[in-house]
Amino acid sequence: MCLPLLMGPVTVNPSSERSGARARLEAAALEAFARSGFHGTTTRDIAAAAGMSPAALYVHHQSKEFMLYVLSKAGHERALELVSDAAASQSEPGDQLVAVMRAFVLHHARDPIGARVLNYELHALSPEHLAEIVRMRQETERIARDIVERGLQAGEFTTADPRMTAVALLSLGIDVSRWYHEVGDWTPEDVAEHYCELAERMVGARRSGCGRTSSMGS
Amino acid sequence: MCLPLLMGPVTVNPSSERSGARARLEAAALEAFARSGFHGTTTRDIAAAAGMSPAALYVHHQSKEFMLYVLSKAGHERALELVSDAAASQSEPGDQLVAVMRAFVLHHARDPIGARVLNYELHALSPEHLAEIVRMRQETERIARDIVERGLQAGEFTTADPRMTAVALLSLGIDVSRWYHEVGDWTPEDVAEHYCELAERMVGARRSGCGRTSSMGS
Repeated sequence: MCLPLLMGPVTVNPSSERSGARARLEAAALEAFARSGFHGTTTRDIAAAAGMSPAALYVHHQSKEFMLYVLSKAGHERALELVSDAAASQSEPGDQLVAVMRAFVLHHARDPIGARVLNYELHALSPEHLAEIVRMRQETERIARDIVERGLQAGEFTTADPRMTAVALLSLGIDVSRWYHEVGDWTPEDVAEHYCELAERMVGARRSGCGRTSSMGS
Repeated sequence: MCLPLLMGPVTVNPSSERSGARARLEAAALEAFARSGFHGTTTRDIAAAAGMSPAALYVHHQSKEFMLYVLSKAGHERALELVSDAAASQSEPGDQLVAVMRAFVLHHARDPIGARVLNYELHALSPEHLAEIVRMRQETERIARDIVERGLQAGEFTTADPRMTAVALLSLGIDVSRWYHEVGDWTPEDVAEHYCELAERMVGARRSGCGRTSSMGS
């Protein structure tokens, strides 16, 4: 598992036993949720995997649900930041599409296990925590939709339903985390480059920006 | 939940108490796995939801894993049959692509809960059962790949990596089961029609077959 890529660098202050224990607990929780699902994991399992007593776990986190929330929040913040930075790195919708798709696909191919926990265990969050995560997901969707709609308005893209096309673009990226270890022997970069070309086709882009930075353009 | 669509019509002989009980158990297991995950579900939960004693459950199924296997086998057989029938209903790769994408997307949009259990709980199967399910998934992938490769050979499609494009087409369909109840207010038919157009674009189809049977072509 490639935890730092999902969570961003975990800041551990060596002088702080508390933050080190917290990072260990979060890594143990993510691995347990990935292996057994949220409902199949006990706080005792997580504490044992982190080399701590169940009582010590409660010093750091209020409950198993709170641990899932902390992991989900950090993972979704990271994904939103990647997408937001990629969109801001370019000015034209066609270039933004390529940058966002590449970053989003690389993120899911490089840490499929973490991404699976984040995408498939949402139903286990409390209503308040779920609402907070959903807002971040909606913001990611808004960025993708905005790119498609601006490309359409500029005459660069053609699509009958820009909103559903934006959903499909993100869907393709998210589902990489499900199939990446099951099918094929592609590197994350291989998938990102081919998906960049697929994304351009899905929006009906008039010109390709994939080929400019890759040897695998159509 | 729309169980018959996933599983095919459940054959219940009214004179057979045994087959009626088995169908009840399978419906209860699917619902419990969808709600709590495989590892978060006990055989006791399933028996109670089906109005049976845990002992009675073992008359019908050897274990919780065996129930997941029975559900997975029936669901994957149904998906493979849909894809296989759709491919066989047409002769040209372009028409086959449209027929397969439409059937596959409708299947996942109409029964997202069942499809989620089938796609996201595979890791809980025994190695032998998993191998059997993987063979069916590979056969579905082979049909999709064959369509893309024949379209390429016929000069109807263009794609730099036909295998990854086929994976992406099925991936789009499968992931509908994750997002369908979270985003948008489209009918399964709306999604199937738009995804049919996206599929044609992804393979670089020279002509569109979507528009012929839908009002939503590009």
